Amino acid sequence: MQNKNTENKKDYIYGKNAVTEALLNAPQRINKIIISKSAINDNKINEIINLAKKNSIVFQFLPKEHFSQYAEVSNQGIVAFVSPIAYCDFYDFLTKKKNGYSRVIILDGIEDPHNLGAIIRTSACAGFDALIIPSRRNAQVNSTVEKTSAGAVNHIPIIQVNSLSNAIDKLKDNDYWIIAADAHGKDNYFDINYTDMNFALIMGGEETGVSQNNLKKSDFVVKIPMLRNFNSLNVSNAACAIIYESLRQDIFHMRKNKN
Amino acid sequence: MQNKNTENKKDYIYGKNAVTEALLNAPQRINKIIISKSAINDNKINEIINLAKKNSIVFQFLPKEHFSQYAEVSNQGIVAFVSPIAYCDFYDFLTKKKNGYSRVIILDGIEDPHNLGAIIRTSACAGFDALIIPSRRNAQVNSTVEKTSAGAVNHIPIIQVNSLSNAIDKLKDNDYWIIAADAHGKDNYFDINYTDMNFALIMGGEETGVSQNNLKKSDFVVKIPMLRNFNSLNVSNAACAIIYESLRQDIFHMRKNKN
Repeated sequence: MQNKNTENKKDYIYGKNAVTEALLNAPQRINKIIISKSAINDNKINEIINLAKKNSIVFQFLPKEHFSQYAEVSNQGIVAFVSPIAYCDFYDFLTKKKNGYSRVIILDGIEDPHNLGAIIRTSACAGFDALIIPSRRNAQVNSTVEKTSAGAVNHIPIIQVNSLSNAIDKLKDNDYWIIAADAHGKDNYFDINYTDMNFALIMGGEETGVSQNNLKKSDFVVKIPMLRNFNSLNVSNAACAIIYESLRQDIFHMRKNKN
Repeated sequence: MQNKNTENKKDYIYGKNAVTEALLNAPQRINKIIISKSAINDNKINEIINLAKKNSIVFQFLPKEHFSQYAEVSNQGIVAFVSPIAYCDFYDFLTKKKNGYSRVIILDGIEDPHNLGAIIRTSACAGFDALIIPSRRNAQVNSTVEKTSAGAVNHIPIIQVNSLSNAIDKLKDNDYWIIAADAHGKDNYFDINYTDMNFALIMGGEETGVSQNNLKKSDFVVKIPMLRNFNSLNVSNAACAIIYESLRQDIFHMRKNKN
């Protein structure tokens, strides 16, 4: 479900890092930048001004008081008004030729925009090809997500689909293996082989996990071992453990093939 | 640095899961529980009431309006007033006999209470023995951290020290190897061997990383490989990748020794 508190923040991003990232990677999305006069003597702000000039983006200096309306977010005296991110088309993605095997992450009911942002960030760092979210019952990409992703929304295609179930079928038709993460999974996540195949990893919502229907469609259901009588990883951390294990295996596999 | 917005929330925890966790694992910390009358017909709330009765903890039903003062946190109609968590004494920890090798995580300047909470959670899940934070220049355990940790603060000893530098020296004296995570590290985190030794893993702050002084004291400095031209994992996700890689190696090592 979309977080109501953040629905009105769709149209701007804030903070020095997020604005710099957008300027570097998606300047066409930025309509205008406002900068607090109190923030002017700052290296990062100067860098932002230079990038804005280079991209012919309008910027304006405003008194610090003007930023009180953005006080609920840590804006650091800088706000950029942007067009929404352009979701990538699923069928375009499927038909595009890829180098090597493809890795995709599917989110099934993630509600917290901070978790969504962190997962986008990790997926981008680990070189995943795309992230798929359903258009309902999942956080959507808004300014909180963009900020939490540290700008990673501009580095990895994000696909919005009406039906996850159909998307999973389409992925299967296109030679993807489906891996779901679930506390009751059969194998530890590090005991399956991620190399030499296309795969889509499904992570479920904070309270609900992966839906029964999607679990049934999965070729593997993996769990993360818990060593204490305490079974509750944050979903973005759980995703990171699995994503980076698949990358570790890929790197070891490449090294082995070289020798 | 302690987050000013959360300083006043030290004395209560909120939400059904956090209160249940505290009742199960540290009931002696709870002074009183208040429950919104609008939340009464709920299985989890009933479970909380039963646990409170069992532990002779006072609870009280109050009109929904009373909870408006806690509106800034998602309290789900339940708030428990608690004594602060009892930090574990460092020297007690060092002298206590452990089964097998010891694993500790050290935080060096983590500012965001959500990151602190998530790292406590992951460390508890992966069976780490303790978490060490400095008493200044790092988020401290408050109600936001307790909530984000999903109650994990009651499952892993948390040690507060005045000087990280001295703590690292003491750990070295006690036969711990020191591993720091840094973007400029020499080895990938999955290329070092975590088995057959005690180790302490140092994770640095969101903006600053591990301090130079602590990097110098480290036996290994490891990095997490980044596949895109985008180098910025969330610190709790980075910690999770390394923590769970060490656990994976331990499990593979144990299997090998059994055969």
